[in-house]
Amino acid sequence: MVDLILKKRRAQALSAAETEWWVNAFVRGEVPDYQASAMLMAICFSGMSSEETVALTLAMAHSGACIDLAEVGVAVDKHSTGGVGDSTTLVCAPLAAACGARVAKISGRGLGHTGGTVDKLESIPGFNAALSPDEFVKAIKRAGLAITGPSAELVPADKMLYALRDVTATVDCIPLIASSIMSKKIAAGAGAIVLDVKVGNGAIMPDIDRAILLAEQMVAIGQGAGRETVALLSDMDQPLGLSVGNSLDIAEAIRILRGEESGPLLELSLLLAAEMLAVTGIAHTQREGLSRVKDAVANGTALAAFRAMVEAQGGDPQVVENPSLLPAAPRRETVCALEAGWLLRCDTVAIGQAAVLLGAGRTRKEDPIDPSAGIVLLRRPGDRVEAGEPLAVLHAGEETNMQEAAALLLRSLHFGPAPPVARPLVQGRVTASATERFVE
Amino acid sequence: MVDLILKKRRAQALSAAETEWWVNAFVRGEVPDYQASAMLMAICFSGMSSEETVALTLAMAHSGACIDLAEVGVAVDKHSTGGVGDSTTLVCAPLAAACGARVAKISGRGLGHTGGTVDKLESIPGFNAALSPDEFVKAIKRAGLAITGPSAELVPADKMLYALRDVTATVDCIPLIASSIMSKKIAAGAGAIVLDVKVGNGAIMPDIDRAILLAEQMVAIGQGAGRETVALLSDMDQPLGLSVGNSLDIAEAIRILRGEESGPLLELSLLLAAEMLAVTGIAHTQREGLSRVKDAVANGTALAAFRAMVEAQGGDPQVVENPSLLPAAPRRETVCALEAGWLLRCDTVAIGQAAVLLGAGRTRKEDPIDPSAGIVLLRRPGDRVEAGEPLAVLHAGEETNMQEAAALLLRSLHFGPAPPVARPLVQGRVTASATERFVE
Repeated sequence: MVDLILKKRRAQALSAAETEWWVNAFVRGEVPDYQASAMLMAICFSGMSSEETVALTLAMAHSGACIDLAEVGVAVDKHSTGGVGDSTTLVCAPLAAACGARVAKISGRGLGHTGGTVDKLESIPGFNAALSPDEFVKAIKRAGLAITGPSAELVPADKMLYALRDVTATVDCIPLIASSIMSKKIAAGAGAIVLDVKVGNGAIMPDIDRAILLAEQMVAIGQGAGRETVALLSDMDQPLGLSVGNSLDIAEAIRILRGEESGPLLELSLLLAAEMLAVTGIAHTQREGLSRVKDAVANGTALAAFRAMVEAQGGDPQVVENPSLLPAAPRRETVCALEAGWLLRCDTVAIGQAAVLLGAGRTRKEDPIDPSAGIVLLRRPGDRVEAGEPLAVLHAGEETNMQEAAALLLRSLHFGPAPPVARPLVQGRVTASATERFVE
Repeated sequence: MVDLILKKRRAQALSAAETEWWVNAFVRGEVPDYQASAMLMAICFSGMSSEETVALTLAMAHSGACIDLAEVGVAVDKHSTGGVGDSTTLVCAPLAAACGARVAKISGRGLGHTGGTVDKLESIPGFNAALSPDEFVKAIKRAGLAITGPSAELVPADKMLYALRDVTATVDCIPLIASSIMSKKIAAGAGAIVLDVKVGNGAIMPDIDRAILLAEQMVAIGQGAGRETVALLSDMDQPLGLSVGNSLDIAEAIRILRGEESGPLLELSLLLAAEMLAVTGIAHTQREGLSRVKDAVANGTALAAFRAMVEAQGGDPQVVENPSLLPAAPRRETVCALEAGWLLRCDTVAIGQAAVLLGAGRTRKEDPIDPSAGIVLLRRPGDRVEAGEPLAVLHAGEETNMQEAAALLLRSLHFGPAPPVARPLVQGRVTASATERFVE
């Protein structure tokens, strides 16, 4: 291991066999933490070649159990690098499934200011988001899509390396971020992968240049591992949906799938679902895919796919017709504008933190969450607001002090005397053959 | 700690307080190995400012007990970065003491191809090289010089950090090497320090440029810590003395101090002793010091100082008059030249390894050594040798297989058809105010 660290310290490339050896030795406990952390720091400085990043990702992916989805054909997974008010999975997965895709989605739980799809789905009475690999395959075959939480058996190398990176200042390193994300996608068995790389305030990559680099590395890893992969770069300077919570987000997704609500959440979900159809070959082009997923909203098949998924995973499918079956918070409080102006932008991190204060999220992994708590925004960036007009409604439990969350929410909304310049929702698109960039 | 690692990863300077904090927290076990190794790797890449290196050195020096030598005045320590056949301490310390210096020398044990002064001195019957700080001070007051082994209480931070560097490919980093060496010198209490930085094959710094960088950093640390410090850069492409062993080296040092032998070992010892007189203010210049230490050989006071040290540390002082009281190997074997030619150079690492094979050194810290074993070279680089002429005598115990050592020794001596170009013994000199360089 010392020789391998030294090699990387000298910016020499490790062979696939060398990478595989150290990752497996680390997982077996034969390479100690202090050597792994020295290797990670050397990688941060020396970088990795494309071949090395693929080798690291595959070594991590194969460090534990892998899910075999051969039975369901080419399953597609969609991954977001994490956002606030981001319920795209809840919308785009049923959209793609409604058009014939087999969607195999492993989702996470929320931590800090970012929410988690698993937490949201678990607010549906009876919903089981802890499927075994067998149950996962069965649910996909039955409903066309399944969404489950992370399994302890998948990618132990990533869990161990991530825990080490977190405490050794080696989190912010593009090849390590890319291999961490892609190792989980590959182990989860999907044959095609659509990535939603967030750009902006609160995103893992705050600027478009680094976001494109990350997207390019992830797409290259996907291709290197034989998985058709495409990435969209989407704006995170505004929450996509108006809800930030768990049952609130489920209700919002249902309204969108019913065709009752539009906005950035629907728009981005349509684009992602169109990519999911294109990477699996169901649509010939993204454009054709887009037209098909739009139809799926209009003709009700997307909502039916969502209902089928809830039912296949043990949840009460009647929430689709009757969202009042979802947990509801006993207290609601309206936050009003202190002065008049144009809503310029939202600090999405602070909004996420306000939701955590209300009980919708957790600051430590072991914290419980309140499925009914959260925030419903009433205004979006670009809106004109008068003093005293309602901006948002806070939802919380009886015991919760809502003052602090209200103050934090108010500070997170930035007003000005003129409307903001509109920003494109999608700022770039990366495929194996090309990088398109829609902003400067 | 994560924030400090991140700061260093971004090549920002840590404050003295930050450095002191993490070093002490690491020694107390509050900063785990994996964070310390990430910090060390970040230092390897980002470097440290002169202020940071001084702060790290002082934090390490103060991490454990420090020896207080105030009682003996300005004591001088001499440190070599490690060589083969390097008995300069055994010669220059008595030389300087004979001229009035107070020499307080902490020496090490041998490991791998490098010998250790403590091992050599312990071949003198009765010699105690494990003095307590009190005994150390008493011995210096009595004999003008004392040489003792490393104490477990001194500089725990260096022991812990060195052990970690050894297994994380972070050994070869000039500021870390400089702070490791200087922290030990500072904790050992010397008010003035003379450094012998080896350059060449087998030395810690194989090329003159890096050796000068290391010397400059160590001298800057010494000055920053209020210790008058000077460094000589000396050639390591030849063994200094003709002996490579333990009792063999003691016998050689005695012959040199008696004025019976000359050569590079005497030359370098005279120069180092002259520097020891100059940094303590006993001589006004190095030149004046050189004249005084030459006199000390001629008038017998240097030999008397050596005898006084042996006696003060419990050894049998009669070895000085009668070196046959030293352990002698039962078997000797002469290695002869296979062909005629000029001896161009010696691979000092291989010679050191041949001595280890004979029992004179150790490959692991816990290995025992044979004090009588070793090699006496009969030829130096620059000598003309005919085929069949003796090159060296191997000394070993009855059980030792001398074949392998003889073969390794023969391979370490490189012959050619013409005499080699003479190289200067001292290649540079670094003081707080100037760097002199005597070779290209």
